[in-house]
Amino acid sequence: MYDNVLDKIMKPKSIAVIGASTKEHTIGSDIMKRLQEYNFNGKIYPVNPKGGIIEGLQAYTSVLEIPGEVDLALIVVNAKFVLSTLDQCNEKGIKGICIITAGFKETGKEGAELEKELLNKIRSYGMRCVGPNCLGVVNTHPDIKMDACFAESLPERGNIGFVSQSGALGGGILNILKDLNLGFAQFISIGNQADVNAETAIEYWENDDDVKQILLYMESIQNPQNFRKLATRVTKKKPILALKAGRSAAGASAASSHTGSLAGADKAAAALLHQSGVIREFSLQNLFETAKVFANCPIPKGDRVAIITNSGGPGIMATDAVCEYGMQMAKIKDETKEKLRSFLPSAASVKNPIDMIASAPIEHYKETLKTVVADENVDMIIVIYLPFLGLKDIDVAKAVMEIKEEHPEKPIIGVFMTKNEFFTKLSDMNVNVPFFMYAEQAADGLNRLNQQRLWMEKEEGKIPVYDVDREKVKNIILKSINDGRDQLTTLESIDVLRAYGIRACKYGLATNIDEVVTLGNSIGYPVVMKMTSKTTSHKTDVGGVVVNIRSEEQLRNEYNALLKRLEEKGLLEGLEGVIIQEMVKGNREMVCGIATDPQYGPMMMFGLGGVFVEVMKDVTFRIAPLTDNDAIDMIKSVKAYKLLEGARGTKPADIEQIKETLLRLSQLVNDFKFIDELDINPLLISEKTGEGIAVDGRIKVRMNEAKEFFGCAAGVCSAV
Amino acid sequence: MYDNVLDKIMKPKSIAVIGASTKEHTIGSDIMKRLQEYNFNGKIYPVNPKGGIIEGLQAYTSVLEIPGEVDLALIVVNAKFVLSTLDQCNEKGIKGICIITAGFKETGKEGAELEKELLNKIRSYGMRCVGPNCLGVVNTHPDIKMDACFAESLPERGNIGFVSQSGALGGGILNILKDLNLGFAQFISIGNQADVNAETAIEYWENDDDVKQILLYMESIQNPQNFRKLATRVTKKKPILALKAGRSAAGASAASSHTGSLAGADKAAAALLHQSGVIREFSLQNLFETAKVFANCPIPKGDRVAIITNSGGPGIMATDAVCEYGMQMAKIKDETKEKLRSFLPSAASVKNPIDMIASAPIEHYKETLKTVVADENVDMIIVIYLPFLGLKDIDVAKAVMEIKEEHPEKPIIGVFMTKNEFFTKLSDMNVNVPFFMYAEQAADGLNRLNQQRLWMEKEEGKIPVYDVDREKVKNIILKSINDGRDQLTTLESIDVLRAYGIRACKYGLATNIDEVVTLGNSIGYPVVMKMTSKTTSHKTDVGGVVVNIRSEEQLRNEYNALLKRLEEKGLLEGLEGVIIQEMVKGNREMVCGIATDPQYGPMMMFGLGGVFVEVMKDVTFRIAPLTDNDAIDMIKSVKAYKLLEGARGTKPADIEQIKETLLRLSQLVNDFKFIDELDINPLLISEKTGEGIAVDGRIKVRMNEAKEFFGCAAGVCSAV
Repeated sequence: MYDNVLDKIMKPKSIAVIGASTKEHTIGSDIMKRLQEYNFNGKIYPVNPKGGIIEGLQAYTSVLEIPGEVDLALIVVNAKFVLSTLDQCNEKGIKGICIITAGFKETGKEGAELEKELLNKIRSYGMRCVGPNCLGVVNTHPDIKMDACFAESLPERGNIGFVSQSGALGGGILNILKDLNLGFAQFISIGNQADVNAETAIEYWENDDDVKQILLYMESIQNPQNFRKLATRVTKKKPILALKAGRSAAGASAASSHTGSLAGADKAAAALLHQSGVIREFSLQNLFETAKVFANCPIPKGDRVAIITNSGGPGIMATDAVCEYGMQMAKIKDETKEKLRSFLPSAASVKNPIDMIASAPIEHYKETLKTVVADENVDMIIVIYLPFLGLKDIDVAKAVMEIKEEHPEKPIIGVFMTKNEFFTKLSDMNVNVPFFMYAEQAADGLNRLNQQRLWMEKEEGKIPVYDVDREKVKNIILKSINDGRDQLTTLESIDVLRAYGIRACKYGLATNIDEVVTLGNSIGYPVVMKMTSKTTSHKTDVGGVVVNIRSEEQLRNEYNALLKRLEEKGLLEGLEGVIIQEMVKGNREMVCGIATDPQYGPMMMFGLGGVFVEVMKDVTFRIAPLTDNDAIDMIKSVKAYKLLEGARGTKPADIEQIKETLLRLSQLVNDFKFIDELDINPLLISEKTGEGIAVDGRIKVRMNEAKEFFGCAAGVCSAV
Repeated sequence: MYDNVLDKIMKPKSIAVIGASTKEHTIGSDIMKRLQEYNFNGKIYPVNPKGGIIEGLQAYTSVLEIPGEVDLALIVVNAKFVLSTLDQCNEKGIKGICIITAGFKETGKEGAELEKELLNKIRSYGMRCVGPNCLGVVNTHPDIKMDACFAESLPERGNIGFVSQSGALGGGILNILKDLNLGFAQFISIGNQADVNAETAIEYWENDDDVKQILLYMESIQNPQNFRKLATRVTKKKPILALKAGRSAAGASAASSHTGSLAGADKAAAALLHQSGVIREFSLQNLFETAKVFANCPIPKGDRVAIITNSGGPGIMATDAVCEYGMQMAKIKDETKEKLRSFLPSAASVKNPIDMIASAPIEHYKETLKTVVADENVDMIIVIYLPFLGLKDIDVAKAVMEIKEEHPEKPIIGVFMTKNEFFTKLSDMNVNVPFFMYAEQAADGLNRLNQQRLWMEKEEGKIPVYDVDREKVKNIILKSINDGRDQLTTLESIDVLRAYGIRACKYGLATNIDEVVTLGNSIGYPVVMKMTSKTTSHKTDVGGVVVNIRSEEQLRNEYNALLKRLEEKGLLEGLEGVIIQEMVKGNREMVCGIATDPQYGPMMMFGLGGVFVEVMKDVTFRIAPLTDNDAIDMIKSVKAYKLLEGARGTKPADIEQIKETLLRLSQLVNDFKFIDELDINPLLISEKTGEGIAVDGRIKVRMNEAKEFFGCAAGVCSAV
């Protein structure tokens, strides 16, 4: 929900600096200087109990003495004074708060307590608050010009909205952005993110045209479900790039199921970002390079890349990289080729990559680029320059930018393998084309543009709701928890799956010959017969498992033979009955299931099953609940999808039915959130029908949550 | 073989510039200027038919007029004069040649002819030649100081030997090396590599202490086997880093077998570089970053990394990257922690990553680094700096370099997330530590150091020679080619494998009941019986395949029953006999084989077999012949190795026997080089013994080469 109190923080007309100071090299002094140096477009009120003149302005001994209205209170006083400062701000009617002061949650238990009190005040006073323990906020809009931040450099104007969870890192980043030709619109250092966090910023910037792309540096995601909801929506309008650190820290989860052991926090974060359409980067370098591309390129219409170069080697390297990303090398039209041939020397190559050869002058760069931009078969362009006698890098760059100015409709990226000083020169210019040193950086950038295109073109996913037997599942689970079991039996698990319309192996328990035959006939042959006994645990030793029973007659015979064998061995007494089970024939074993991440909640898994689960790790995860898009994306993203498609002449699997299986599982864990783990391994693909059939199932619940769900935290639960 | 004629090119005492010119902005003028500007430490003789003074030196109208001895002739005359120039050089006794002139192989057929003649002259005159169509050569050694190259910038002194196949790219690279703090010892632009190529350079630099690391930019490898031999030896002494471009260009091979379709030229190049211990980089950026690390770091003793930082965020990112490379985070010793605690503030963390917190002054950097270097649990160190008020990046860098000077024994890499100008400053300094902007670059560098360590520690591989029945294989293949078949039958293929001591499914052909029984008894039960018939192609329709025959009695019955079935259907006449085959039980299907790359020759493949071959592509390739190291490396490098180890309670596979299988296959293709494809799919891992057993086999030969081998290019070959 858009909250205009945030405007008080990010677009204030007046700022009170509480803790402003005359003492050099303190935050209270630096931040005053910075606000003025950057020409804040509103009123600045320094507040200091001693009063006096601070940085040329009259200081007030308290916010209450400030004559006019105050939108934003920048708080830099000692932590112990922060709460009382908030009280005064409230009295003054200030709603926008930014607490730079450290000494809260990050310092331990006491600090966390203090932060809790702080948040309570913020909430009860109807304030919004950035920080505490942060670097401040910035808005470079000409109408605002607020640099309420103490990084070394003044902020550069640009179109990025940037959120940093790490203060020091945020500062470091601001320092280097200028070198990278990157400016930003707004910056929020969220610090301990007591109130304002990445999600707040995403929502706040959703419809702010000044912010064309959102960059996030995160070490944690506070509310994954909310993040997903917001990011999924906002990424359809503008790209969100995220660097999520702490990938290795999580370590292996100690969960007991396959699903669990293959999961782990980073898989969850990866799934969440993927499902939300967020572009995930794994290093600051890549984050900035991608931002540079989005800052200067439109979203392309397709993935066909043309490469224009004055040297073969980098042309090859760019082609390698473009192909490795799965993009297409554009097929240059014949007309285009003819036109190129009309002015390029005969030694030039007019096939893609277009090699104008080393002697290409500025005019060839211009003409070639102009001609190629106009080609309908071309969606994106890489222009490569290698130094050649008499041709200046910066002049070529200007020519490229000139053509880009005339033809802004297609992404153009420059690869200039030249001296560092070229990039330094650029950083003082207004550029409209991203320039890189290496071909791979350009290909990487185009790939990101293409990724954003595909995401924006994709229809929004829907979460279907199936007609299921919720009551039946309730009763099965209730029985299990009343028995003190957090793990359902295989039969119970299969019953749960079937109640949710998931195709599971048909079976039944029979205790006499008539029941056996009735069951066999109703399931349909071939069937498997398994004895179940209280006294005989090793069923196979007494021939207690008979497979591939093909007829009623054979079933009768096998049942009678089993009774006879048991009688002979004196084991008949313990027999509870026999399970008659559908015999599923399939040569493809998949796996699917549910794992729970302590922070991200239930995750769905799908992939190659059987003995290959742990060996090949050809599995994929998504955060529940799944949309139909998520489900199909999961199925298609594993290598084993080729097996499902029917590699080597096998029957194609029923993808629609498998998709539904995943969606029904997702509905199950959405209805019963206390399901901790669920494993279907194998989900056998029927040779006959191509359906995925759950041949085995395991479900484990979190006991306490389950009891709470049934309202029986203490004692035995009654029927529901 | 070390060739001291190369010294004439790379360490000349005198150079004749043939084609020297007074005309500005020509190569003949520029190269004269450059030689003098860089203060060549020997004599320069300009040669021009017009004579006169060129760049202040007396020009000679012909090399023959030069009074003194000439080591190196730099040829820049028009292509049509190059051959006659060589004749004159020979007359003058010049052995070192560098032909910068273009207009040879690169221009098409005529040029290629010219280049052939050129090479003939070079060979017959006992000369060595760099080029043609190249950028020249450089040697920065103070005793030589030769810049015979026309790149924009003067070369920087350093310890890199650099070979570039692309002239323009080589020039571009020289321009940016200074910015990257990278200097080199020698540079060879090999151009069309008519004579001198990458292999020549590797051999030449093997024992040249001035060259501490070798960098290669290659688009092709001229003689893969020779490259492998040389590189394998030289990489044990100094690192070789290679960028091999043209990965995507090759496209999918049209070969018909699995082995073939999974191969392809880049797989071959990858295998070759891997087996030779060459560090392969995929972008120039990575190539240079790795070179920067090797230029300033010793090879570490282990893979335990300590991270020292003044900010949490980058510490986390560095940890992520270190762990993702599979290196270890060092366990800091208790003494070290105590010592660190004695001077770091209480908010600092002395666990790895060691966070000195933002306020850390220079002294903390020095003391912490000194303390951590001394810790025996630490093999390599990353030092991170984020700007903090009052602390200058360059001062911190100097402190780090000071400690490195005192403790050169461990690699230290700096991550300085600061302004670009920091790196510009560094480029004018003598550095002994590689500095990067981002944590991932440092982790990448340490990973390369570690890779080189592991390679250097690895014992040299041996190519074993097994006692095999070569004659038998000859006869089998001879029969096949005399029949006009380039594809051996399954039985022939299996016979070939067995002749080379490869464990293959036992089998035999029987034509009557006695033979059937004798075969069955000698193979051992259970067996499989398959009919073989000239008239019945669909064996299974008439029950022509019977599996799991467990006894002589059952075998007799099944054979008789088969005859009866065929008689009833009138199909008995076409029957040739039955194949009695060992029935192998195994639940793990691997694949191995041979594919031939047109350029790199025979390659070995190993991996997960059965239906998974194409789907999972869990296979690996090596160039034949295999060493024992290569074979075991292949087996361990596929994911399915876990299955072989005995995942999920299955019997561990007999790794030694599988290794031998690969080595024997390698010997086979080494003995019969015309084997084009060989597929063993599956290589079934026996449940009982863990052996890999070839259950099916396919061998295809290149007919013409095979005929040549047998000396029967025309007509039928006689027995050998």
